[in-house]
Amino acid sequence: MKKSLGAKTLLYPTPVLVVGTYGADGRANAMTAAWGGIACSKPPCVSISLRSATASHGNIMQREAFTISLPSEVNAAQADYFGLVSGRDHDKFQESGLTPVPSDLVDAPYVDEFPLVLECSVVGVHELGLHTQFIGQIEDVKVDEALLGADGRIDFDLLKPILFAMDPGTYYAVGRLLGKAYTIGKDVATGA
Amino acid sequence: MKKSLGAKTLLYPTPVLVVGTYGADGRANAMTAAWGGIACSKPPCVSISLRSATASHGNIMQREAFTISLPSEVNAAQADYFGLVSGRDHDKFQESGLTPVPSDLVDAPYVDEFPLVLECSVVGVHELGLHTQFIGQIEDVKVDEALLGADGRIDFDLLKPILFAMDPGTYYAVGRLLGKAYTIGKDVATGA
Repeated sequence: MKKSLGAKTLLYPTPVLVVGTYGADGRANAMTAAWGGIACSKPPCVSISLRSATASHGNIMQREAFTISLPSEVNAAQADYFGLVSGRDHDKFQESGLTPVPSDLVDAPYVDEFPLVLECSVVGVHELGLHTQFIGQIEDVKVDEALLGADGRIDFDLLKPILFAMDPGTYYAVGRLLGKAYTIGKDVATGA
Repeated sequence: MKKSLGAKTLLYPTPVLVVGTYGADGRANAMTAAWGGIACSKPPCVSISLRSATASHGNIMQREAFTISLPSEVNAAQADYFGLVSGRDHDKFQESGLTPVPSDLVDAPYVDEFPLVLECSVVGVHELGLHTQFIGQIEDVKVDEALLGADGRIDFDLLKPILFAMDPGTYYAVGRLLGKAYTIGKDVATGA
């Protein structure tokens, strides 16, 4: 039996997206967002939703670009810090000691110490309510070379991405392998 | 040192969203999607991206509604099945033995055996390329009563949601707790 919880943003898991932007003064900023995900395969696009009150929102509107730096398990506290204070009154890169690297493709910086980076040009802006949804076309993905397997692809066991659970408001590691997609479902149909 | 991998949809983790719809003939359908996430807090909205070639895409365009049923670990193979075959030539509920329940709020069915359900009315349709992004306003969230804690909130340790890793194309359980949001980042700033 299911019970109604009301209209809430309960969806699991959500990602931990550290969004890199430049301010009007050229200062690098980053903020953590959990509202977002891949939005299209061709062209490859990602969506992120930010409140208009954030410094990052204004930065993206002005520069029409952002990056997403994906934290690994060891970066969990740093990712949380990027979501704790505002770029309006904090130089988060300076305070955290992390390194902003200018993207060579879009007008935004990424976090050097985080393992995986998406460089995005804004191709859509959707006002949904409290949040504005930005559609970013992924111009390139960059990854730490140490995470690449012999086949040139990301070794997922080394990437160790983290996830966010909105309620209770906690970060988790990725757990055990459950199975291969387009494979473990093959025996489900009974032919009934 | 980071290496370029090209413009790809590499973002981790992505959710496992089983999207429930009705066809023109009134038959319940469901398909699995990984492209999506929360899009707005007020009103609460979720976004899902589907290819126009899918039966579900046409169903949503016609009924302007969908549900999202979130599988638990024990449902991983069933969720994979919903992504393996098309509702055009399969009655996936009948073949899987799972139960479609008509939403009492929107014109779409959900999967009774999956623990968490979002019932959504379409409030936006964005053509992004290969995928169409649907914005669904969350009208209600329903959860199995057995997953509710004494405080009336979801017990995350019982929910056991799963996640998808696009490359290598595998499902994972949620792993160990890394820390509390808006908390573990408090000591990151050095005051430098």
